[in-house]
Amino acid sequence: MIRGRITGRIWSSKHIETLPNGALLEVTLDTGGSLIALDPLGCAEGEAVLVTQGSVAAGYFTKSKAPIDALIIGSIDEQG
Amino acid sequence: MIRGRITGRIWSSKHIETLPNGALLEVTLDTGGSLIALDPLGCAEGEAVLVTQGSVAAGYFTKSKAPIDALIIGSIDEQG
Amino acid sequence: MIRGRITGRIWSSKHIETLPNGALLEVTLDTGGSLIALDPLGCAEGEAVLVTQGSVAAGYFTKSKAPIDALIIGSIDEQG
Amino acid sequence: MIRGRITGRIWSSKHIETLPNGALLEVTLDTGGSLIALDPLGCAEGEAVLVTQGSVAAGYFTKSKAPIDALIIGSIDEQG
Amino acid sequence: MIRGRITGRIWSSKHIETLPNGALLEVTLDTGGSLIALDPLGCAEGEAVLVTQGSVAAGYFTKSKAPIDALIIGSIDEQG
Repeated sequence: MIRGRITGRIWSSKHIETLPNGALLEVTLDTGGSLIALDPLGCAEGEAVLVTQGSVAAGYFTKSKAPIDALIIGSIDEQG
Repeated sequence: MIRGRITGRIWSSKHIETLPNGALLEVTLDTGGSLIALDPLGCAEGEAVLVTQGSVAAGYFTKSKAPIDALIIGSIDEQG
Repeated sequence: MIRGRITGRIWSSKHIETLPNGALLEVTLDTGGSLIALDPLGCAEGEAVLVTQGSVAAGYFTKSKAPIDALIIGSIDEQG
Repeated sequence: MIRGRITGRIWSSKHIETLPNGALLEVTLDTGGSLIALDPLGCAEGEAVLVTQGSVAAGYFTKSKAPIDALIIGSIDEQG
Repeated sequence: MIRGRITGRIWSSKHIETLPNGALLEVTLDTGGSLIALDPLGCAEGEAVLVTQGSVAAGYFTKSKAPIDALIIGSIDEQG
């Protein structure tokens, strides 16, 4: 998995019908670069998150074949 | 997923028989580089799109095993 | 597989319910960069490890579809 | 998918028994780098091709589990 | 697939139980970098090899779900 921080959100009105519900969040990676991940947890901008990639991201969705290759699987605990 | 913008289209008259119908579009990625993605949505040159990669891209095609590792899953809403 | 060395650990109190038990360890790769891998072996900070990536990492977990794309599969023997 | 051009061919007399028949061609990628892809189409040196990667490349072979992670799926039409 | 040359071997006394038998060889890639691949062919140090990556590498092992994401599938013929 890779670490990153939420830095934005995108909307897609025109999309394929198998796209699951959930926010499409921009995650800036600690190792550089960024990606768009689906968020089933309700994370907020600025939150540090853990992202899984590839077919295991789609495996989270059991009803249909979700076209998702990046999923936020957890929020990383940060010391206050 | 990754963000990009459509910058071209390719044609392949000689191809394997399991290639699905649909435009093969060149997508220039926001993070650099480019790839060729299948477009089931009818996007236009210059449009900002969201691309999924790997075996989940092929999972969109249910009739046969499609040899597709990059699929446009949505058009990204842009403020006018 | 890729080689690396354990350089940290993260905790995630808020996570999806299918995340398996096990430590989430930061592995700094010999080829540069770092990732977070699930550790089923109980490795210690500083230990040299072998990491597998992608859907085969999730295949280790047989009870449910684990959203894991990086797994420590062995500790690398080092000469004393 | 990625674009490239055929720049060579390799032979492997000693190989695992599940390697399918077909030429193993070196493809130099338009975005830099190169890889070895299996060619089911009979492409020639210098030809521009479209390559798919990952498990979908292996899915083209239906008789056995082919250990193929890169497959030429089409020749790209070029203006004369 | 990618080309490389065998430049070392690692041993892992402490490993997960589903790791298959076979040498874990370090392969230095022609395009730069290195990885650890499982070798079912008995290759020697200095030998030029072809490596497949991802879930198709694990598919070679039929008895159990092998946590292998890189497999040597052939030795590359070199002119004497």
